[in-house]
Amino acid sequence: MIDLENGKITMEYGAGGRAMEELISLVFKPAFTNDFLNEGNDQAILPCLDEKGKIAFTTDSYVVTPLFFAGGNIGDLAINGTVNDLAVGGAVPLYISAGFIIEEGFPIQKMKKIVASMGEAAKKAGVKVVTGDTKVVEKGAASGLFINTAGVGFVPEGVALSGNKAEAGDVIILSGSIAEHGVAIMSARKNMEFETSIVSDTAPLNGLVQSMLAASPKGIKCMRDATRGGVAAVLNEIAKQSNVGMMIEESKIPVQKEVVAICDMFGFDPLNIACEGRLVAIVKKEVAGDVLNAMHSNPFGKGASIIGEVIKDSDNLVQMRTLIGGLRLVEWFYGEQLPRIC
Amino acid sequence: MIDLENGKITMEYGAGGRAMEELISLVFKPAFTNDFLNEGNDQAILPCLDEKGKIAFTTDSYVVTPLFFAGGNIGDLAINGTVNDLAVGGAVPLYISAGFIIEEGFPIQKMKKIVASMGEAAKKAGVKVVTGDTKVVEKGAASGLFINTAGVGFVPEGVALSGNKAEAGDVIILSGSIAEHGVAIMSARKNMEFETSIVSDTAPLNGLVQSMLAASPKGIKCMRDATRGGVAAVLNEIAKQSNVGMMIEESKIPVQKEVVAICDMFGFDPLNIACEGRLVAIVKKEVAGDVLNAMHSNPFGKGASIIGEVIKDSDNLVQMRTLIGGLRLVEWFYGEQLPRIC
Repeated sequence: MIDLENGKITMEYGAGGRAMEELISLVFKPAFTNDFLNEGNDQAILPCLDEKGKIAFTTDSYVVTPLFFAGGNIGDLAINGTVNDLAVGGAVPLYISAGFIIEEGFPIQKMKKIVASMGEAAKKAGVKVVTGDTKVVEKGAASGLFINTAGVGFVPEGVALSGNKAEAGDVIILSGSIAEHGVAIMSARKNMEFETSIVSDTAPLNGLVQSMLAASPKGIKCMRDATRGGVAAVLNEIAKQSNVGMMIEESKIPVQKEVVAICDMFGFDPLNIACEGRLVAIVKKEVAGDVLNAMHSNPFGKGASIIGEVIKDSDNLVQMRTLIGGLRLVEWFYGEQLPRIC
Repeated sequence: MIDLENGKITMEYGAGGRAMEELISLVFKPAFTNDFLNEGNDQAILPCLDEKGKIAFTTDSYVVTPLFFAGGNIGDLAINGTVNDLAVGGAVPLYISAGFIIEEGFPIQKMKKIVASMGEAAKKAGVKVVTGDTKVVEKGAASGLFINTAGVGFVPEGVALSGNKAEAGDVIILSGSIAEHGVAIMSARKNMEFETSIVSDTAPLNGLVQSMLAASPKGIKCMRDATRGGVAAVLNEIAKQSNVGMMIEESKIPVQKEVVAICDMFGFDPLNIACEGRLVAIVKKEVAGDVLNAMHSNPFGKGASIIGEVIKDSDNLVQMRTLIGGLRLVEWFYGEQLPRIC
């Protein structure tokens, strides 16, 4: 029988036998319980989305290290991240799958804690974890725990966001202050410990997105959550997809002083550092005020502001007017500054 | 620029920067190309399944070792496995997500080969890989490559299979000879190398399932693919879910002589060894002939046979009449005989 207090995950828990069934019954089901999951089949059978609209489908694997950090852990990150990937497509997220790859020896108590966070995050975001899978690999074959989540939702009639719709004259809205997730992860790393009050911004953005779409069903061209690669990557991606340029103002970009100080210390640019609860939206100028007002009334959009605008540029450059009045390129890095932040 | 011949995956390829975009453009897109994926957004927006029926959703992570084995590799396994998890729910699989966790240093050429196999397997099964994610972890933080796939399909009107529907008198059908996948994996392992002509049975079963359902839309109670834990685990699971017992006949269970010999050599029971292209179906006695006929005309059901029947048993035991006429318990192992076979 599984020891929930002091037990460790052994190879048996991923083997399709009774041990795995115990893990599912005693650890996963209490956190995720819902009628679809409780059916206990190899697939969840969900109500048809008739009349609701198109289906949205996404996936992300989470390999963040360490597993716990200020403001969250791999569990809520894995729910929020996938909820957000659906939300920024204009979709209403409904169902989540969860695939666990666990290293032999992983403490069952930690597993329980992470899974409980997933359950709570799912509740907050209004989604259900309806199907899952558990694999265990030998000691040394994985670093603790990896989680994959996939998500299914629907895109309401009339909503059609895409990265290729940005046009010169559109404004760029950022939903809040940046780089907090990345900084929280850095400060939790053993090799770069430092004191900070910064916590991860990990949050579900589906409520925020729905309020934005309600404010202007047609004026929002595209949204992206600024995760790996940060705001810089998102802006460069959209510029490329839409064959435009971007001009942003450094003075308008919300970033906490402590974040700036820490990034300076390590030589990072906050624009390249991941958020996990912030989005960038490309919006028609004439509706920007309405969209911004809607954002300000949502807890995850309070700090939203217009940070710049889309411009004509066949080189698809993202440029920034700096605090001292110069112009600089906002680079899309080839690789990364900070690995395994999500 | 990515070196497709001699390059290795570096941390940069999972960082959300231009390197990752190159990997996606040059390795993933050519294998998976379709309109949904090519949109290049963080989520796939799919046609609404109006009038088609309920939605089916499943996930599995693949950690098989070694990555290549007789009859397949982790790539086609990851497609077939998820296709099958949908199919045995009576669903028509349509869309697949793919999440890759890659160990730094993994050869890009191997990656290309695996991804190409996924593309071919998807084509054979009639599904599209519409969304994906790539993470890279440091050398030693994962063993080569893990793949997660999730799948979405629809369950046609009137189909409602579930593991809790087996009743005394129903017959148990097995779609073909067992344990070949497990034996193929064993023979590919460095520490237990032996010569065998056995190849993995990995195959997509959605065509087979649809032909079975066409033969008897109402007479099929439940299906399961016999992966981890083998046929023994599937029968024990269904017995428990339906609160019944099972009685099977050893003489009726299709198993290749070489498989029996190899299992004997290692002390394994073929009933506990994984297949990746075989299913068990619980079927009303009066339609068993029709279902069997339909199976025999499908390439993946040629070896189908009735192996026993569901009986009343409040202890939910699975029993087998052996070749020498005795009765033995078909055990549901607590743990596993053979780790990481899928």
